[in-house]
Amino acid sequence: MGNQTAYQSLTRTFQRLHHFGHLSAIASWDQAAMMPSKGNEARAAAQAELQVLMHQLITAPELKTQLDAAEQEALDPSQRANLREIRRDWQLANLLPAELIEAKSLAAARCEHAWRSQRRANDWQGFLQNFREVLRLAREEAGLLAQAQGGSRYDALLDKYEPGMKSADIARIFGDVKTWLPGLIAKARDKQAGESVIQPQGPFSVEKQRQLGLEVMGLLGFDFDGGRLDVSNHPFCGGVPEDVRITTRYRDDDFVQSLMGIIHETGHARYEQSLPRGLLSQPVARARSMGIHESQSLSFEMQLGRSRGFLQLIAPLIGKHFGEQPAFGADNLARLYTRVAPGYIRVDADELCYPAHVILRFEIERALIDGEIEAEDVPALWDEKMMAYLGVDTRGNYRDGCLQDIHWTDTFGYFPSYTLGAMYAAQYFATIRRQEPQLDEKIAAGNLAPVFDWLNANIWSQGSRWTTNELVERATGETLNPAYYRAHLQARYLD
Amino acid sequence: MGNQTAYQSLTRTFQRLHHFGHLSAIASWDQAAMMPSKGNEARAAAQAELQVLMHQLITAPELKTQLDAAEQEALDPSQRANLREIRRDWQLANLLPAELIEAKSLAAARCEHAWRSQRRANDWQGFLQNFREVLRLAREEAGLLAQAQGGSRYDALLDKYEPGMKSADIARIFGDVKTWLPGLIAKARDKQAGESVIQPQGPFSVEKQRQLGLEVMGLLGFDFDGGRLDVSNHPFCGGVPEDVRITTRYRDDDFVQSLMGIIHETGHARYEQSLPRGLLSQPVARARSMGIHESQSLSFEMQLGRSRGFLQLIAPLIGKHFGEQPAFGADNLARLYTRVAPGYIRVDADELCYPAHVILRFEIERALIDGEIEAEDVPALWDEKMMAYLGVDTRGNYRDGCLQDIHWTDTFGYFPSYTLGAMYAAQYFATIRRQEPQLDEKIAAGNLAPVFDWLNANIWSQGSRWTTNELVERATGETLNPAYYRAHLQARYLD
Repeated sequence: MGNQTAYQSLTRTFQRLHHFGHLSAIASWDQAAMMPSKGNEARAAAQAELQVLMHQLITAPELKTQLDAAEQEALDPSQRANLREIRRDWQLANLLPAELIEAKSLAAARCEHAWRSQRRANDWQGFLQNFREVLRLAREEAGLLAQAQGGSRYDALLDKYEPGMKSADIARIFGDVKTWLPGLIAKARDKQAGESVIQPQGPFSVEKQRQLGLEVMGLLGFDFDGGRLDVSNHPFCGGVPEDVRITTRYRDDDFVQSLMGIIHETGHARYEQSLPRGLLSQPVARARSMGIHESQSLSFEMQLGRSRGFLQLIAPLIGKHFGEQPAFGADNLARLYTRVAPGYIRVDADELCYPAHVILRFEIERALIDGEIEAEDVPALWDEKMMAYLGVDTRGNYRDGCLQDIHWTDTFGYFPSYTLGAMYAAQYFATIRRQEPQLDEKIAAGNLAPVFDWLNANIWSQGSRWTTNELVERATGETLNPAYYRAHLQARYLD
Repeated sequence: MGNQTAYQSLTRTFQRLHHFGHLSAIASWDQAAMMPSKGNEARAAAQAELQVLMHQLITAPELKTQLDAAEQEALDPSQRANLREIRRDWQLANLLPAELIEAKSLAAARCEHAWRSQRRANDWQGFLQNFREVLRLAREEAGLLAQAQGGSRYDALLDKYEPGMKSADIARIFGDVKTWLPGLIAKARDKQAGESVIQPQGPFSVEKQRQLGLEVMGLLGFDFDGGRLDVSNHPFCGGVPEDVRITTRYRDDDFVQSLMGIIHETGHARYEQSLPRGLLSQPVARARSMGIHESQSLSFEMQLGRSRGFLQLIAPLIGKHFGEQPAFGADNLARLYTRVAPGYIRVDADELCYPAHVILRFEIERALIDGEIEAEDVPALWDEKMMAYLGVDTRGNYRDGCLQDIHWTDTFGYFPSYTLGAMYAAQYFATIRRQEPQLDEKIAAGNLAPVFDWLNANIWSQGSRWTTNELVERATGETLNPAYYRAHLQARYLD
């Protein structure tokens, strides 16, 4: 190994991490999609053993020396970007003492496990007992990260999912959304009050839904030689870039949500399937951020999938698989897929109400992490904001209120990515439409190449070569500009 | 760690190996049953990385000291047995230099990959080019193992799969079988010449075959909370004891083979599902040997599955799933499942011809490894033995002759385990029948508990606590006695 540069030594370590990560990813997919219940304990122990090993690899003392030495070596721009990403991974792993990681993992497991029944039992007080410790440890983690990186505690957690993004930016962006969103929701509901929507008549057999889903995935360019569609309780996109595993869940009285869920996960999947092949073992080849990942699923689900052209394209497929129904006309499908109805649950929210759920969570979790409020303050704030943003009364209903998400048993700083993703997606499509004035006609005719080619050239193939701002500016001519998102929503819901 | 005994340090290392082995086993199952083609290269690289890591763990210098120190520590009998198995694993891993392991792995991969097309093309000369190197490396491996363990080179390879068994024992046992098997086959064929067998009329839908298979697995006590049934090209039993994954393959013109294949794999599965739970992370909890493993699948397939009582039990299920047919009577099923017809292919062979295929391979691979013959001598010997043992002419037909098995691209010393397994199974059932004179009536009535209880108490729950001879003697009152096998075959095929 004497002739290896420090950079080469680092890439070899990250290649090993990549290989172990592959096995961990497949085992996680299996756990969610295939594993019978009695396999759980042994699987958890095996995964934990691998995590310990990977943590040992990335905290080995020689990596610090190698990182510093590699900075001085002659590297091409792609290697330089890879080194930036390697350092980022290294910092995240090395800034936290092993005891804190273990304490966090135990507290999260306890809180998550109890949450499953506490949510059903509407038991906020019970949840609070575990949640206080989760929050204490998250603040401790955030404090350590913030100390090293500068910025606020919440900034430090946000940065894990959205590198380079500051909470002040998010607050400004979301603050603007709050000035126009409630009004837009109200106007859209007024407009839709006079519409008649025909509900599809079930049952829709799981096998037919699956066949329809597979056909739509094919239209969307999913590579079935490099991935699969299966079933899990919580739909996700997992596996590895060479072998992307997406899941959905089916209800035999409704295919509408499941189909759009497949379209959403296919967006994630095509990003993964199109990451730069030659570099896959290195961090520079990874998806840029959680927000950029979500921008792909939402490009597919919101921009493409709910567009009039796309619904025209798939309307005949729906009839082919389930038999013709009046509900399957493209106009009616468009009404079904753009229906606005404020409700309790984020994951069931429509496109227009969704950002309100996210903004509420961002405001609460930021205040929690930065120490402006305490765990016991959450329900009152939740009730107040739900009423203010969506006009929904959640008082006493913790189950459908602040206990509905799994995130806070473990994760703070992730929620903004959902809405950032929606904003990026709107900005991409504004760019694509400028370049392709006939985009909707092409989509309706089944020519989706303009969308895929643009996303591939500008996002998918770029991996983590650029910072998020650089990536978005290279792709669209400007950094994140939420005006496109507002314009998209106004055009879809008011025009 | 200062207070840990050497034995405790060893068990911790083997627990880590067990956890990594879990991930490797699930990834292997996935590769065979789920993985799309483009996932192959990344999967192979990830698995190889894990193998390297596991080899590093088991060749760490401190293990030798710990093994020697642990021998002097106070251990209970189960720990003592575990230490014996740990030492065995350690020896197998440490006797071979890493370069030899890598060279073997590369030569095997090359030979196996080319074999897939060479078999189809009947290209023995092409195969020979790679096979010479595979054989050279297998002899080198066997030589190193034999040097350390005593015995012949072939003994050393045999011992990997059947600890404690010597090739002279196998030669003696198989030599005896050769004195009576050809005559028994001839008599059975004469007897069957006058029988009329009704063939089932297909097609048999894959979904119905699967439902029938699942129902029969249920009868056989498979725990579906701790395992699955899926499809793969080559049926196998994989996964981990807590989560056993069996596979089969379906043909829609024939359910007979597939159903019996499921019964076979369910025998392997129940062994794994019933290994001693508290010790699962340690070698002492593993299945005793390949021959003992095969004795479980063959207890299910040959002793139980093809028994008159069991076929009476499942005949109505077959009719329930496929609709009634004259072929589904228990008498006719018994004739279908005991039909004797010598042929080219081992995996398609009936119960009576199967040992001839194994004996032929044992004799050839033993002579190859011990240097009595060379790679190019294989086809002539194959032709001669096929004619002598089964009266089948394979001259020039390499595809259905010496190129039919995948084993020799990689593995020598394994074939005897198949027939040893059949012999052990016959010996177990002779014992069970002595204890349960009404066994067949109970089986026909759906009471399979006498079989499962005996296997569980005597084999499954014992793991690797005993040597093979000890295990079999404790279970049946004597070590391997092939007379039970001969008596079983005579009773089934001549009486």
